[in-house]
Amino acid sequence: MKAASFNGPHNITVEEVPDPRITQPTDAVIKITYTCICGSDLWYYRGIVDHSKGPIGHEFMGGVIAVGENVKKVTVGDLVVGPFFWCDGTCPQCKKGMSSACLNGGAWGTKGTTGCQAEKLRVPFADANLFSFPKDTDKNFMPPLLTLSDVMGTGHHAAVSAGVRTGSVVAVVGDGAVGLCAVLASKRLGASNIILMSRHEDRQKVGRQFGATDIVAERGQEGIAKVKELTEGIGADCVLDCVGGQDAREMAMGLVRSGGRVGCVGVPHDVSDIPAGDIFWKNITIGGGIAPTASYMPELLKDVLSGNLDPSPVFDLTLALSDIAKGYEAMDKRESIKVLIKNE
Amino acid sequence: MKAASFNGPHNITVEEVPDPRITQPTDAVIKITYTCICGSDLWYYRGIVDHSKGPIGHEFMGGVIAVGENVKKVTVGDLVVGPFFWCDGTCPQCKKGMSSACLNGGAWGTKGTTGCQAEKLRVPFADANLFSFPKDTDKNFMPPLLTLSDVMGTGHHAAVSAGVRTGSVVAVVGDGAVGLCAVLASKRLGASNIILMSRHEDRQKVGRQFGATDIVAERGQEGIAKVKELTEGIGADCVLDCVGGQDAREMAMGLVRSGGRVGCVGVPHDVSDIPAGDIFWKNITIGGGIAPTASYMPELLKDVLSGNLDPSPVFDLTLALSDIAKGYEAMDKRESIKVLIKNE
Repeated sequence: MKAASFNGPHNITVEEVPDPRITQPTDAVIKITYTCICGSDLWYYRGIVDHSKGPIGHEFMGGVIAVGENVKKVTVGDLVVGPFFWCDGTCPQCKKGMSSACLNGGAWGTKGTTGCQAEKLRVPFADANLFSFPKDTDKNFMPPLLTLSDVMGTGHHAAVSAGVRTGSVVAVVGDGAVGLCAVLASKRLGASNIILMSRHEDRQKVGRQFGATDIVAERGQEGIAKVKELTEGIGADCVLDCVGGQDAREMAMGLVRSGGRVGCVGVPHDVSDIPAGDIFWKNITIGGGIAPTASYMPELLKDVLSGNLDPSPVFDLTLALSDIAKGYEAMDKRESIKVLIKNE
Repeated sequence: MKAASFNGPHNITVEEVPDPRITQPTDAVIKITYTCICGSDLWYYRGIVDHSKGPIGHEFMGGVIAVGENVKKVTVGDLVVGPFFWCDGTCPQCKKGMSSACLNGGAWGTKGTTGCQAEKLRVPFADANLFSFPKDTDKNFMPPLLTLSDVMGTGHHAAVSAGVRTGSVVAVVGDGAVGLCAVLASKRLGASNIILMSRHEDRQKVGRQFGATDIVAERGQEGIAKVKELTEGIGADCVLDCVGGQDAREMAMGLVRSGGRVGCVGVPHDVSDIPAGDIFWKNITIGGGIAPTASYMPELLKDVLSGNLDPSPVFDLTLALSDIAKGYEAMDKRESIKVLIKNE
């Protein structure tokens, strides 16, 4: 089969590699119909973090083409979507709804797994990681379903971690695919006001479509002052940090009101420690991390299939797997928010 | 009137001072029936933090003896209890339920107010800070009602900040009055397992009475290992730090499971900053601060009066105001958990 390969910064190729096959009785093998490129793939693409050479990608959906003998919930022919962090579905953490902290799980590319930017994929613990949807599902639902693999689930985790609920006043830092999905997740959870920090016109447009009630283009202290104006002078109840750098973190901490919550889903690259006293005296709660998208999948899948949740506008470019290098380039240059890869 | 006075570490006296009087139309003056000594009073008593000389104490209940012309909710003769941090009840933060971050509020002893360890007290914004209860309320309800001023509300804040709900597995760090109230608050919010970290037999006993299902006497790594044994190897869903020092914080961070929450209500004296990466990779949420006990008062007052909430066992010594110095001494030497001061 063909699979994307990372050969070093700014160097992605598509290679011929051996087909995956069942190695454990709980495995399934999937023929991938759609995969995509994540903002977090850009970290190694740009050389900011290390990544081993070879398989890449962590978002996928497709059809089941083989199952191990202990797989009970999915069968050959099922159409499925899966999470960016696989889990066993049975450990105490999975039972608590924290699949991304599964005691026996891992990221794609670790513990004998490969990457999702490929034609096929072996999925461990298939019953825990593959979520079926009806075979007659309209093709238009494929892109929104694929967002449940990562970005929509991650945006939802930002909102959940920040305690968004009916009537919340929310500020979202980051207008990438995750930030935009965080806007949509906040809307879905009942936020009354959603302020998106963004200075890119195309992203502002998607943000408005997803439910942003206000857009603030200013950054730093000016951005904070602007948000205070919109929030009775006190700041937002819930701030969703969907970036992960120091500037974003400082902005998030500046935007939140006393007694408010910050939900962080951007990997904290070079982020300073959180001052214990500052958060105590402001009664700020801070949390978040790697989203348990397997745990969130049933709830969100239902809403996508019912037509109540459509994060697909985050995809603004569709390419074939053979052209995936162009997709990385487009996202690196911010010419695309998020690239959908369609096999065949 | 008589009022306790701080004259320097380990030096508390009772002095004759002028009676308080109405200075603003929103004021009330209270004749204090009961006040108490707080664990946080020991910080300045022991010379660990600075405190100006003069009035002290921040917990009170009593009878209204005068009201300003704009006071609407309370009248002369009402029996009332009030919070340890006064607020205006009308600012955006108060409306959000975060009275301890009131834009116009303050601690007792600041902004022209005096201390609660006294015979009388002028209460600003009386309608926001005085909570009435029936005049025929049995005397036995006075001590539990007084805990709503601070320790019970603060224990509740620890539980709320840690997200305690039905079925939560909780660990409480700190077996002082606040830690014990945090056990009671967790029980009230539906926790299924409550592990109290304690090595004092008298406090363990109150902890059990309040709903602790397990007691762990070990500290540091041994304590963490013991709690892991009790929590399927993963740690507690919710950890309540009711101490505030570095050892307690480290223990709290070690006790919480991935995806769990830490609620801190102990003032973070000499506590290190919180590592941003550690909490992200473990998906830990950390929050808490100065409890908004005015905001919590209506909910908790109802439960005390109905007999469903009785934190009074935290008081194990009752003294007259004239003997308050002995109370500080007893708490300093850990001979008493919490001292109740009864006027006349």
